[in-house]
Amino acid sequence: MSDMHTIKQYEEELRLIKEKVLRLGGLVEEGISNSVKALVERDIQIAERTIENDHVVNGLEVEIDELCLKVLALRQPAASDLRLITTAIKIITDLERIGDMAVNLCERAIELTEEPPLKPYIDIPRMAEAAQKMLKESLDAFVNGDTHLATKVLTEDDFVDDLNRQIFRELLTFMIEDPSTISRAMKVLFISKYLERIADHATNIAEMVVFMVKGKVIRHIKPQTEE
Amino acid sequence: MSDMHTIKQYEEELRLIKEKVLRLGGLVEEGISNSVKALVERDIQIAERTIENDHVVNGLEVEIDELCLKVLALRQPAASDLRLITTAIKIITDLERIGDMAVNLCERAIELTEEPPLKPYIDIPRMAEAAQKMLKESLDAFVNGDTHLATKVLTEDDFVDDLNRQIFRELLTFMIEDPSTISRAMKVLFISKYLERIADHATNIAEMVVFMVKGKVIRHIKPQTEE
Repeated sequence: MSDMHTIKQYEEELRLIKEKVLRLGGLVEEGISNSVKALVERDIQIAERTIENDHVVNGLEVEIDELCLKVLALRQPAASDLRLITTAIKIITDLERIGDMAVNLCERAIELTEEPPLKPYIDIPRMAEAAQKMLKESLDAFVNGDTHLATKVLTEDDFVDDLNRQIFRELLTFMIEDPSTISRAMKVLFISKYLERIADHATNIAEMVVFMVKGKVIRHIKPQTEE
Repeated sequence: MSDMHTIKQYEEELRLIKEKVLRLGGLVEEGISNSVKALVERDIQIAERTIENDHVVNGLEVEIDELCLKVLALRQPAASDLRLITTAIKIITDLERIGDMAVNLCERAIELTEEPPLKPYIDIPRMAEAAQKMLKESLDAFVNGDTHLATKVLTEDDFVDDLNRQIFRELLTFMIEDPSTISRAMKVLFISKYLERIADHATNIAEMVVFMVKGKVIRHIKPQTEE
């Protein structure tokens, strides 16, 4: 990079990458909260709108991917900037898949309106809230290179896993006591799994942030166990 | 790149990236087949060994990631090489997560040995075989830049999804007829979901390959639906 103008452009591009990743994160968070709203309020319209809006998430993911490639090709960034950009490329894949989870959740929410409610949802919204918080924190950790915040996200994943196990056990008792609830309980169980997977994606993002900043792998210390 | 020697080194590095991605793919494939073997033969030892071996997968993923960063930093590749490397960075994340699925499968397989078998496994091994084939093909498509093969993988995903739905319905009838089977049936159901997710990862890889070669997004045309 030979002159001041180019350096300014380059810094602007890096800033733009971070900004767009946050925007994508915001869209995806909105998708999660709307999908849970659709579930709790048995609102088919919100569910359908959330499914429809997924293409915006997908479009923005591609846009960020292209921007990252452009910066890699034209600016030839080194060291920490390089790691920032390759991490962004990975993070947006996780974000796009969280978007898919919200779509799956909406599909189950629509199916569940066809039958009477099994029970009021208490743990599912708590789980969604926790997963959303983890997602927000992991992206804040990314843009600020904040390993302290990223490490906090990793510990929060246990709470979501515990809730998932609790929901699993509760639904199991429903199913055993009354087999007519099985089909509905399974759908709720899948929803609980989608939320657990969203939290896992946030955990993956947080792990990548630590790797990006410290160059140290903290993944795979605690394997992601599933119930 | 100024001389013949550097060009040769660079070409060698690109070849090495492809070779290591294939090796990682091979390890992961082995993990899948061993986990299903552990399940079908109720063999705790194979399951435990497969869980243990996951750290090799994780280690190789980090190694490839580092190699890709090194090539990006030192060789400043352009156009198609750049896309090859950023695609490799994404693909290995999918491969590592497939490895996690095999670990989860082994954990369920171990738990299932504590109870009498529910029924002989017929569709699960078929599903695993199909998912493995998709994985192999998607990686061959990657190293050869073969969009024809990549597109074939996308169509194969339907077969796995159909098997997953079939298993789901069959297990549902078991659970409804005899609630004492619920806990076991749920574990088998989770295993079926792990395999479906492995096939989804292979599909993701295939989609990335098409994007890498054609620069055209074929993702998100058919949403990945879950049951």
